[in-house]
Amino acid sequence: MKNKLYFKLKNKKVQEEAFSAICEEQKHIGYYALPEQDISPILSYAQTIPEHIESIAIIGIGGSSLGAKAIYEFIKPTKNLKRKLYFFESTDPLNITTLLSKINLEHTHFLVISKSGTTVETFSIYKYIYSLQNSPKSYTFITDPNSPLEKYAQDIGATVLHLPDNVGGRFSVLSTVGLVPLALSGVDIQSLLNGASTIKKSFFGAGHMKDTLLKKAVFYARHHEQYRINCIFAYSETLKYFCEWYVQLWGESLGKRQRHSAFNVGLTPIGLIGPKDQHSFLQLLIDGTRNKSVTFIKIEDFQDDIIIPDISLKHLESLNNLNNLPFSKLINMQCDSVIEALIEEDIPLDSITISNVNEDNIGALIYYYEILTSLVGELIDVNTYDQPGVEEGKIILKKKLSS
Amino acid sequence: MKNKLYFKLKNKKVQEEAFSAICEEQKHIGYYALPEQDISPILSYAQTIPEHIESIAIIGIGGSSLGAKAIYEFIKPTKNLKRKLYFFESTDPLNITTLLSKINLEHTHFLVISKSGTTVETFSIYKYIYSLQNSPKSYTFITDPNSPLEKYAQDIGATVLHLPDNVGGRFSVLSTVGLVPLALSGVDIQSLLNGASTIKKSFFGAGHMKDTLLKKAVFYARHHEQYRINCIFAYSETLKYFCEWYVQLWGESLGKRQRHSAFNVGLTPIGLIGPKDQHSFLQLLIDGTRNKSVTFIKIEDFQDDIIIPDISLKHLESLNNLNNLPFSKLINMQCDSVIEALIEEDIPLDSITISNVNEDNIGALIYYYEILTSLVGELIDVNTYDQPGVEEGKIILKKKLSS
Repeated sequence: MKNKLYFKLKNKKVQEEAFSAICEEQKHIGYYALPEQDISPILSYAQTIPEHIESIAIIGIGGSSLGAKAIYEFIKPTKNLKRKLYFFESTDPLNITTLLSKINLEHTHFLVISKSGTTVETFSIYKYIYSLQNSPKSYTFITDPNSPLEKYAQDIGATVLHLPDNVGGRFSVLSTVGLVPLALSGVDIQSLLNGASTIKKSFFGAGHMKDTLLKKAVFYARHHEQYRINCIFAYSETLKYFCEWYVQLWGESLGKRQRHSAFNVGLTPIGLIGPKDQHSFLQLLIDGTRNKSVTFIKIEDFQDDIIIPDISLKHLESLNNLNNLPFSKLINMQCDSVIEALIEEDIPLDSITISNVNEDNIGALIYYYEILTSLVGELIDVNTYDQPGVEEGKIILKKKLSS
Repeated sequence: MKNKLYFKLKNKKVQEEAFSAICEEQKHIGYYALPEQDISPILSYAQTIPEHIESIAIIGIGGSSLGAKAIYEFIKPTKNLKRKLYFFESTDPLNITTLLSKINLEHTHFLVISKSGTTVETFSIYKYIYSLQNSPKSYTFITDPNSPLEKYAQDIGATVLHLPDNVGGRFSVLSTVGLVPLALSGVDIQSLLNGASTIKKSFFGAGHMKDTLLKKAVFYARHHEQYRINCIFAYSETLKYFCEWYVQLWGESLGKRQRHSAFNVGLTPIGLIGPKDQHSFLQLLIDGTRNKSVTFIKIEDFQDDIIIPDISLKHLESLNNLNNLPFSKLINMQCDSVIEALIEEDIPLDSITISNVNEDNIGALIYYYEILTSLVGELIDVNTYDQPGVEEGKIILKKKLSS
């Protein structure tokens, strides 16, 4: 994975302060250590799921589903995966009914994922599905040790797996939360961690990623007032759900009151997919208010590439220059053209290039964004790991439910 | 469709000026007249597609696909549609291959949609598919009259349908561009137009929608500097692609240099889906920088509603208050709770309520957003209907392709 910045920045002192803070934070924030975890318990657990199980249904929302979905949807088009994943993450009755129509309850294993064990969405859906399939062996529960959910699961005789300590939902994809469904689907989870580990070593070991991540984070923090919106522009449909994962990570981590002031700060994440969104959002990027930075993500080599055939269409001969071009080359030329157009307009941007669609690369991309988020959180003086703003809505709902 | 604003505004004079401008604009901008069109030619055309055709594949991008997709994905969960729609809208080779693996070429009809007839994405994909299926009767082309694409299509003996005059891509969903694929899939296109017509009559006939749309547009324009981001928070998964359509409509229409100044202006659209994004974006809305307005969209009555069963889970008895609740009621309570929390924080918001999931309501929603976009464009002094910013990237790509 390469990351090229198109903006300059010195601020060595700020960079080193942020680096020290992250080195300190690493001692108590759990996600940093995930690349080194021993995955053998997860692999052993995966062996206990019978062969006739063809679908894995995740009942979970937000941090309990977005990460696994991002990786699954990225890998799926290139690999003949063993099992399909389905995500129950809405209380929309039409969505629940549609998803249920796609699976066979007898051939499905359900993963109920809830850190607290009391998430309204997760348990309303669980109750409904449990009324259709009440065999405890069809369920695995992933929750905090000693939560009421663990006690419930033990009571009915279902399997329980634990979340690691001090790993928040949106930073949990490389823990049991993401690795268990992905292992069951046939994704190579060790490679995910290896990819993450590459970024970790490069960052903490003063490699290329230390320099790049620090420069980028300081740029975002210092220009926070001007560039309030940070877009990812990913040139592949495979990264669509990675963008959704990024939106949660960035928005929920950085949208806060500052720790030492009454200011509300934050940076707004937007996920775009190229070339499609050249026909949607690009006009706004180029001619709209200049309040956006852009990170392009490119895939160098698409597996199973296909080539535009050498066909000349009468009256449309101007399109002959597309002939014999591999689609992978076309999509990257489209990306490069937009990069050049944005540089002309002096819009702050950087590009990330990954070699191809595999577990190593998505693991690296995820860990890269996690460190970047932690750095920016530190630099804009927020608690990156809590989410106090969502409590009020929960309290109001609770009152409505009781009355 | 009801629309309740939670902010106050007088500015009667500005409102009336904007209304007059739109009444004037209506004479030459084509989309306004679409609700009254005669759809019998489209219905007759639909009769020519043989019964053995089970899939319709749209080859088109941006304005040529987003509208039909928004409506199709909205209606699909509630209606047993006659044919499936597939959208080829990316040059990502993995995406093309994956989509092709889902359809049977012998049972698929392809709609190639391109206003200019020279869209790079559309024709690279068309050439590839044409190399696999070269029977002209498998294709219908939708393009401007007398375009090179029309000549090509006539030469090979394929059907050609025309776009109406003066209807831009992102305002074209209620023209042939959207109506043809939707009619082929079995969506009731007359009801779509009827829904749009209701909004049109209410707006131009000085009904509820005139007052609401004008107030809302003036609020957005006047507070443009502070609330640069306009979120839709739609409480149903069925509205996911409606949000994507909205993002194009809003971003590409309003992100412009002003007509009478050198200022780059614009408003940034964001589409959110509830309750999922309560676990993603809500924290940023509540505690982040106060630069966002929010429009909630609620569906009063979901067809095929399901009920949370009356099950008490040991150790999780606190969740008993969910029992016997219909999911449609729960999702709307979740929405109302977030609305109340945001009002407490003095975040500018409004709510749109539609009665249920049907063609009338999505037609109304679409026309409502089209008029709102036109009004805001007028009020911020941009040309709502062009997209000059995307040209530079196209020129650079053309150079790369030639060399």
